[in-house]
Amino acid sequence: MKSKILSVLSILFLGIVTPTFAATNTAESVQASLDSTWVMIAAVLVFFMHAGFAMVESGFTRSKNTLNILMKNVLTIAIGSLLYFIVGFGIMFGTSGYGIVGIDSFLLTGREDIGFFLFQAVFAATCATIISGAVAERMKLSSYLILTVFMTGLLYPVVGHWIWGGGWISQLGFVDFAGSTVVHLSGAVGAVLATYFLGARIGKYDGGKVHAIPGHNIPIGALGVFILWFGWFGFNGGSTLAADTSLVPMIIAATLLSASGGIIASALYSQWKYKRIDPSLTLNGALGGLVGITAGCANVSLFGAIVIGLISGVILVEAVQFIDRKAKLDDPVGAIAVHGVCGIWGTLAVGLFHTEAGLLYGGGIELLGIQALGIIAVITWMALGSGIVVYVMKKTTGIRVTTEEELTGLDFSEHGSNAYELRDSILSDFSSYESFDGFNSTLATRLNTLGTSEQAGTSK
Amino acid sequence: MKSKILSVLSILFLGIVTPTFAATNTAESVQASLDSTWVMIAAVLVFFMHAGFAMVESGFTRSKNTLNILMKNVLTIAIGSLLYFIVGFGIMFGTSGYGIVGIDSFLLTGREDIGFFLFQAVFAATCATIISGAVAERMKLSSYLILTVFMTGLLYPVVGHWIWGGGWISQLGFVDFAGSTVVHLSGAVGAVLATYFLGARIGKYDGGKVHAIPGHNIPIGALGVFILWFGWFGFNGGSTLAADTSLVPMIIAATLLSASGGIIASALYSQWKYKRIDPSLTLNGALGGLVGITAGCANVSLFGAIVIGLISGVILVEAVQFIDRKAKLDDPVGAIAVHGVCGIWGTLAVGLFHTEAGLLYGGGIELLGIQALGIIAVITWMALGSGIVVYVMKKTTGIRVTTEEELTGLDFSEHGSNAYELRDSILSDFSSYESFDGFNSTLATRLNTLGTSEQAGTSK
Amino acid sequence: MKSKILSVLSILFLGIVTPTFAATNTAESVQASLDSTWVMIAAVLVFFMHAGFAMVESGFTRSKNTLNILMKNVLTIAIGSLLYFIVGFGIMFGTSGYGIVGIDSFLLTGREDIGFFLFQAVFAATCATIISGAVAERMKLSSYLILTVFMTGLLYPVVGHWIWGGGWISQLGFVDFAGSTVVHLSGAVGAVLATYFLGARIGKYDGGKVHAIPGHNIPIGALGVFILWFGWFGFNGGSTLAADTSLVPMIIAATLLSASGGIIASALYSQWKYKRIDPSLTLNGALGGLVGITAGCANVSLFGAIVIGLISGVILVEAVQFIDRKAKLDDPVGAIAVHGVCGIWGTLAVGLFHTEAGLLYGGGIELLGIQALGIIAVITWMALGSGIVVYVMKKTTGIRVTTEEELTGLDFSEHGSNAYELRDSILSDFSSYESFDGFNSTLATRLNTLGTSEQAGTSK
Repeated sequence: MKSKILSVLSILFLGIVTPTFAATNTAESVQASLDSTWVMIAAVLVFFMHAGFAMVESGFTRSKNTLNILMKNVLTIAIGSLLYFIVGFGIMFGTSGYGIVGIDSFLLTGREDIGFFLFQAVFAATCATIISGAVAERMKLSSYLILTVFMTGLLYPVVGHWIWGGGWISQLGFVDFAGSTVVHLSGAVGAVLATYFLGARIGKYDGGKVHAIPGHNIPIGALGVFILWFGWFGFNGGSTLAADTSLVPMIIAATLLSASGGIIASALYSQWKYKRIDPSLTLNGALGGLVGITAGCANVSLFGAIVIGLISGVILVEAVQFIDRKAKLDDPVGAIAVHGVCGIWGTLAVGLFHTEAGLLYGGGIELLGIQALGIIAVITWMALGSGIVVYVMKKTTGIRVTTEEELTGLDFSEHGSNAYELRDSILSDFSSYESFDGFNSTLATRLNTLGTSEQAGTSK
Repeated sequence: MKSKILSVLSILFLGIVTPTFAATNTAESVQASLDSTWVMIAAVLVFFMHAGFAMVESGFTRSKNTLNILMKNVLTIAIGSLLYFIVGFGIMFGTSGYGIVGIDSFLLTGREDIGFFLFQAVFAATCATIISGAVAERMKLSSYLILTVFMTGLLYPVVGHWIWGGGWISQLGFVDFAGSTVVHLSGAVGAVLATYFLGARIGKYDGGKVHAIPGHNIPIGALGVFILWFGWFGFNGGSTLAADTSLVPMIIAATLLSASGGIIASALYSQWKYKRIDPSLTLNGALGGLVGITAGCANVSLFGAIVIGLISGVILVEAVQFIDRKAKLDDPVGAIAVHGVCGIWGTLAVGLFHTEAGLLYGGGIELLGIQALGIIAVITWMALGSGIVVYVMKKTTGIRVTTEEELTGLDFSEHGSNAYELRDSILSDFSSYESFDGFNSTLATRLNTLGTSEQAGTSK
Repeated sequence: MKSKILSVLSILFLGIVTPTFAATNTAESVQASLDSTWVMIAAVLVFFMHAGFAMVESGFTRSKNTLNILMKNVLTIAIGSLLYFIVGFGIMFGTSGYGIVGIDSFLLTGREDIGFFLFQAVFAATCATIISGAVAERMKLSSYLILTVFMTGLLYPVVGHWIWGGGWISQLGFVDFAGSTVVHLSGAVGAVLATYFLGARIGKYDGGKVHAIPGHNIPIGALGVFILWFGWFGFNGGSTLAADTSLVPMIIAATLLSASGGIIASALYSQWKYKRIDPSLTLNGALGGLVGITAGCANVSLFGAIVIGLISGVILVEAVQFIDRKAKLDDPVGAIAVHGVCGIWGTLAVGLFHTEAGLLYGGGIELLGIQALGIIAVITWMALGSGIVVYVMKKTTGIRVTTEEELTGLDFSEHGSNAYELRDSILSDFSSYESFDGFNSTLATRLNTLGTSEQAGTSK
């Protein structure tokens, strides 16, 4: 019996490519090694974007929900990587079934392009993690994780197949070089649906007014933006899948300049509109410029990149305002504006600024139309897919924590712990020695008094 | 006299390789440049792991000891780099004396492989810094630094010689590709001995109970985990010492999937065991999966990597529990469980999952035996070596701060300062103007009242 | 009309290099790709240094000015990148007009070396951001931004032309491989002038005494140091502009060892001088060692690098002391000591330790003289240029926030917001639900009481 299990395990574990070594080096083989090395480095940079997401989302939400948002981010990369290995990569890059879906390459069977898989795997998790910011501070961890399973295992890979895997949208001539639509808009549509079905955080729209709920730690939020920007050079630059001397520097320069444009525009526009340079909008302006250039980074000029970034910065400010005040979708970190609205803009911008086929370069309206069509198709699919998943969960297991849990904070209610020390550092000298015994009793007391407190809160 | 000194200095300073330039490029020379470039990038990533260690160890300990843990980490990389240059590299990679120890190449004399030295230097400091987390919040800075001198200058290089420098363990066929044993287990054994001789933090095991002492800033702890993971791609991927197209992507993919497995397993296992996804254990689960795959990353399949990671995650949870509650070794950040127990597991796992010689692949029990033998040898050497150093210090200079210092916090007692502002930011508007004068007097008052406070504390 | 605009836009947007693909690979073409790839990676690392600056400057100042310092850093990279694209690169690397200034290549017209531009662009922003730390907590955001425009658009590019663009200083034989003078000293001179005209922060030199104003979050400051060090490997290593097998590892090793020397020296020297290892000085010692090796990293031995680093660490401690207590320049983060004094030392050190032309290697006094001359020229130009800009602003728009604004904190007065949550996380459970309504009224109250508070403060 035991040997039989081992034998089965052996078969299961084998069949994966064994490293082979080139006998002699040629210029071609060395270029192939260089291409592979560049894609690996880019993949590592994209991986690091998850640290950026975790810091942005932690910093821009309240401290009582910090452990929860960190766990959502850490678990997303883990689930995303494993599921993409098992099923997502096959759906996205397997042999195409009627241009709709990949039908082989599951578990990388028959594939030797491990580096390509790796680069794509870290992208898949990026798409899913966009949602975690929008649903922060109230979505049940378990429901979020189920949605992540569907996002990385099915919904995103299908979009990826359509546009990057040889599917029907790519056959139309749709251009989305590094994923303004494939990654960012896809994630943002999931975020819209999840936010819609979840509803706003308690207190957000109380008394018919819109209340700002400030983040608790903007320095780590800003660090997160820097980390995302840093990783984005790999996100866009690595999408060449080759260490192309003429293409990679252009892409990285376009990425730098567009993000810079986004910052300048959102800073000046918030100064004009609100009479102050708004830190949160300016930081999101950087991200808006990055999402905006992602689709076109290989096909626009550096001038085009700057203009795309500047417009992204203005759009971002208006989009945050619209989503928060008109659409009344409570998105704590502005993910829908950054990844959704700027994702749409970036994809359309290719139709305008493509140096060979864009409208502003005499290419006519055709590419713009194709870009719009692709956007509509992706929105439709993602809205249906994520909407069904979230709706079914809402009607069965529930997707939202209880009012008590939300008021207490998800850190205590879902993880029984806190992200920060109980008191100021300087005051904790002696108390820290005495406090850990009292820790659980303090929490118990808090839970007991919650009913009363909550009453007081809601009766306001 | 002066010219004589200059002359001596000149001789001392010369003799180091002078850069030479290749006249013409061949495919071989370009591949060599590429290999060198990849190892440099990997070394830079490994260097950055020290930021990760510093953030993990700061975040998971109390704020009153934060400056001290930061200084321990910063000084470790400095001492480690310099000592490894002076003596460590020679012991590890010099001409082997009977397979026991390297006997030349000190100060890199006669060596031109500066890139190889650099990659190994950042590894050496990694091994030493593992200890800083385990001894946090109570070990004297000076004693820690002396231990670091022995770790990077002697103890680690000897292990490195045995396994990577052509020494006796490597001659047996022991497989430890990137250092589950060489780096992680070595550091962890030093941590066990130091923790044992130090004893637990005040209050940790008071009244026969085990008290949790929560960390003060989990977001930076989580950031540290992400940084470590990010750097680990260089740690494992760079250990190829070449930009090998077939090997590097497999290794990086294995590293990603094993860490993901570690996260999933520790999250689910903590959910099953403690009825909640424990943030601290889940974050350590990522590190457990990373340590677990380090030995075998070049020799196991991606399936194997996932299984190794999953098992690492479960082992991690049990190991933390065992060390904290049964062995009663007070390890504030879980370093012994992560680097020690998962290091042993990862090394043994090669004997099971090696696709050519592992037990599960029909390779028999031999490799597993060799792996076990290597582990025992390293534990023996490191325990003796670090044990003697710590024991001698304990009996002479002392290794532990005083009770007053521990209660006050090492930041004030060793550095006369604080890691954080005295009060909440919003409250400090006016007070900050007045407060800095009162700073020293406040601290003086605190010190004066310490005797009383401590009494109150211990009499509880 | 519309088509005319489009036509004009088309002309404006075109004329930028279009990617071209190599038909076949040769050893030369692959080496060129590798060189380009290395420079791209190095540029991305240098970009990330801006995250390091942002964290160092946030951590070492007070929490009431954190948003402001973050905005200054984020806007600096944006303005710097765009202006350097538009005009700075041309001034620095355009065809030389009499060795004084570049006269073409504006908007990259006629240039195809986009990778080279990119690497230089991230350097330009680095020079400017050095000032933001020195002027923290009191300089008006708008005035700082105008100074940044002049720094990145004119002042720095001229220095760059003189030394790296084929200008008159480079023709003398001046050696500054990666910019101890070009980048660091240039920025620091601007910092001296700005700090001089600004004056010290309120309270800094009250009553004839020198008051320490501690930073609010040293862990993120330490993280910033690690990020800077990490990025510095690209800063120095990428300045080769090629993936040179013999040069890059030497440079990176020199960078590692010099920073390590800086840490050890400043730690021991502060222990000797102040009887404790000072965390702030030790962290700045790392930066001092990095600035110190920047000029000579390609031309000194590893021994030389260690000695340069050790001396940097001692110089740093004395320089901080001198600037703070004797010169009475209030530099909250020590930027002038790190980038200015260690920048001068590093540039002079080339004259001593250059393995071919340095004084200690029998090269005579000549190189040392040239180095000194270059330093004097750069100081003169930067002092005049930045001095005029700051002085004119001081006499017209003003450069300093009001006393009320400074006491309140620039976060509220310039951005109407806070960097951190209002209260401790654990206490905010219920209050967070109620507090956001009261937020604006709280701030209004604070502003109303400011007059009184300030009186109390200044009458002390």
